[in-house]
Amino acid sequence: MRDVIITGIGQTPVGELWDKSLRHLGHDAVVAAMQDAGIEQADALYVGNMLSGELSGQEHLATLIADFVGLRGIEAAKIEAACASGAAAVRAGIMAVASGMADVVIAAGVEKMTDTLPEDTTAGLALAADQEYEVAEGATFLALNAMLMQRYMHEYGVAKRDFAPFPVNAHANAQGNPNAMFRMAISAEKYERAPLVAPPINVMDSSPICDGAAAVVLVSGERASAFGQGKRGVRVAATAAATDTLAVHDRRDPLWLEAAYLSSRRAFAQAGLSPDDIDLFELHDAFSIMSVLALEACGFAERGRGVELGASGAITLGGRLPITTMGGLKARGHPVGATGVYQIVEIVQQLRGEAGANQLAHAHVGMAQNIGGSGATILTHILAGA
Amino acid sequence: MRDVIITGIGQTPVGELWDKSLRHLGHDAVVAAMQDAGIEQADALYVGNMLSGELSGQEHLATLIADFVGLRGIEAAKIEAACASGAAAVRAGIMAVASGMADVVIAAGVEKMTDTLPEDTTAGLALAADQEYEVAEGATFLALNAMLMQRYMHEYGVAKRDFAPFPVNAHANAQGNPNAMFRMAISAEKYERAPLVAPPINVMDSSPICDGAAAVVLVSGERASAFGQGKRGVRVAATAAATDTLAVHDRRDPLWLEAAYLSSRRAFAQAGLSPDDIDLFELHDAFSIMSVLALEACGFAERGRGVELGASGAITLGGRLPITTMGGLKARGHPVGATGVYQIVEIVQQLRGEAGANQLAHAHVGMAQNIGGSGATILTHILAGA
Repeated sequence: MRDVIITGIGQTPVGELWDKSLRHLGHDAVVAAMQDAGIEQADALYVGNMLSGELSGQEHLATLIADFVGLRGIEAAKIEAACASGAAAVRAGIMAVASGMADVVIAAGVEKMTDTLPEDTTAGLALAADQEYEVAEGATFLALNAMLMQRYMHEYGVAKRDFAPFPVNAHANAQGNPNAMFRMAISAEKYERAPLVAPPINVMDSSPICDGAAAVVLVSGERASAFGQGKRGVRVAATAAATDTLAVHDRRDPLWLEAAYLSSRRAFAQAGLSPDDIDLFELHDAFSIMSVLALEACGFAERGRGVELGASGAITLGGRLPITTMGGLKARGHPVGATGVYQIVEIVQQLRGEAGANQLAHAHVGMAQNIGGSGATILTHILAGA
Repeated sequence: MRDVIITGIGQTPVGELWDKSLRHLGHDAVVAAMQDAGIEQADALYVGNMLSGELSGQEHLATLIADFVGLRGIEAAKIEAACASGAAAVRAGIMAVASGMADVVIAAGVEKMTDTLPEDTTAGLALAADQEYEVAEGATFLALNAMLMQRYMHEYGVAKRDFAPFPVNAHANAQGNPNAMFRMAISAEKYERAPLVAPPINVMDSSPICDGAAAVVLVSGERASAFGQGKRGVRVAATAAATDTLAVHDRRDPLWLEAAYLSSRRAFAQAGLSPDDIDLFELHDAFSIMSVLALEACGFAERGRGVELGASGAITLGGRLPITTMGGLKARGHPVGATGVYQIVEIVQQLRGEAGANQLAHAHVGMAQNIGGSGATILTHILAGA
C-alpha cells in the first residue's frame, strides 16, 4: 500500500451562506485546496454530501462540481454516509491513491442546509435514521441524543452542568478561527441557562444547521517528494471505518459507541499508536453527549468518566488532549457532509503550524473522528507530520 | 496493486416489486452473493444507489443494509453517481481490495422506483441533470435523449427504423433471463409502431422504471487462491471512470460521448487489450440512441455508423460483438443505482458458463459500461476468466 500525503487544504467560512449555491461552495473549497497544493489537474474528485438531492434538487453532485471547477474528464463520485459522508469521501480518496489507481485526488465535503425551511432540513437530517423503525415513530436526531444524554446522567449520576466544559471549550476555540460560525465565548452559566430544545439537551449542547465546504488534496508519497511537497505535507497514518446498528434501540448498550471503538482500535493498530500518542482529537460534537461517548469508546477515558476530562481542563488548547481546537461542530459549525473534511483540514492546519491564535505547542499526531447517525457509521483518521 | 477477483454474484428479479422494500432488496442480493462466494463475513459493503433519500425517505443506506444483513461492525458507504452509481460502487470495492485495505468486499446496487407516483420518480431521475440550467428549463432525460436521437438522425441521414435491432436484440435476449422484467420478443414492426413518448423516442426505445438489486463479492487474488476460488473466479482486468460536462448543452459535440471514450481508452490500456479482444459488451441502453453513441465512442464502430452494427447482426448472441446479452437496460430493466452491478453480474455469468439459454460460445473477456446522466459520468470495467 502506497503512502498517502495531504498536500493541500481548502475551506469556506461556515454559516448561513445565502449568497452561495451548493456548486459555488464546492467550487470555492476545491479551488482553494488545489491552489494550496499547487496543482491544476487531478485524477479524481470524491465529494462527501448527504442532502443535495433532498434540499437542493441535485444528485450527480460530484460530476457537477468537477465540471464547474473545470476538471474535465476526471473521475467523480459522491459518497454518502449520513453525517460521516465527509470522512468517507476522504477515505475513498486515500484508497484511490493507496491502490495506485490515482496519483492526485481531491476529496471534498459540501452541504447546503439553510436555503430550505428549518422543518424540511430537520426532516432531511432524519433520513440518516431508520425510516421504518425510528423516523416513523417520530424520532429525530435531537430526540435520540436527548435520550442518550438522559440515560448517561441517570447511569453515572452526572449532572447537566458537568457537560458545560465541552461547549465552553468549543466556543472559546471558535474565537480564533476566522471560518467558524459562532465566534463568541460562552460561560458555564450561559450554558446552564440556555433554552432547552429536547430535555436535557439545550441550545448550547447542539451544533447548528449551516452551509459550508472543505477539501483536501491527496497525493502518493512519491509524487509528494517529486514535487517537493514532503515538507509541508501531512501523512495519512491511518484510515478506518466501522458501523453499528442503524437504530439506537437495536444496540445492546446504547451508551457504548461500538463503531467508535472498532474504528479507533483499527486506526491505532494501523498507525502503531495508542491514545497516549494523540496530540489533538477532532471529535464529532454534534451534541455534547457525543463528545463524552466518543472519548470513552476511543480509550481516552473510562466508561462514565468522560465528563471528568472536561472538568480537568484536559480538552482545552493548553491541556493534555485538546479537542475541537477550531471550534468543533458546535461552534465552527456542522454542515453535515462537509464536517469530516473540515476536521481533517483543521488537523492539517495544526500539524503545519498554521492554526493561528489556536496553534497548539505540540501538534505532531492528530486524530479525527466523524460520526454518521447516532453512532451507526464512524470513521477515524490519524494524521502525522510527513 | 493487488489482483481483484469476483468470487460471488447475486441478483433479485427486476420488476415492480411492491412486496419488497429497499432494505429487503439489498438484503436479498447481498445474501445471494455471499452464499455464492461461500463467505459469512466481509470487511466492507459499498452500495450504489441514486434515489433512496428522495423516493424512500432513507439515506445512510449502506449502513442500514449492512445492519439488516447482519454484517455488524463492517465499513459501509453509499456511492452516488446518478445512473452510474452501481459501477461506481463496484469500483470503490475494487480500490479497497487493490489497496490492501480490505480482503473481502461486497459491492451492491439497489434501487426502489415503483413505490412512488411515476411523476415523482421521473422528477427524481431528473436530479441527475443540471438543476439550475437543465431541469429548471423543463428538461428530463427523455427530452435530452430525444434531442440527441433527432440530431443523430439528422446528421447521419439515419432513419428511425435503423435503431430497431437494438431493442429487438435486448428483448430477444431477455427471454432467456429469468430475472428480466420483459421476457417477450418484439419485432422490428412492433418497434416501429410503438407509441411515441418524446419524438423520435418511442416506448420501445426506453428502459423501464423498476426495482431491483444486484451484488458482487470482491476478494484479493491471494485470498481467492487460498479459498480455492480461483477456478470459478473472474478477474477484474480493468476499472476506469471519466466525466464530461453535466449539461448536454455545454458539450462541444453532443453526439460524442467523451467520457465513454476516455474511460474505455483507460480500461483498454489497463487491460492491455483493444476493442477486438472484447467477447461481449454490456452497454448502457437506457435509450436506443445511447447504445449507438457508446459503440462509436468506445471504438467498436466509426462515427455515424453505430447503427450498422445492429443491422449486421453483430450485436446478437451469435454475432461478432454480442451486447445486452441478458436483456440490457431495455428488457432486463434499469433499476438505476443497481444497473451497473447487474451488468457485472451478467458478464460473470457468461464468463463462468452459467448464462443458461443465453450462453455465448466464446466468452473469455467481457466489458461493462455504466452511464450516469446523459453521458456525464461513465465507468468502464473489463472482466476476464481468472
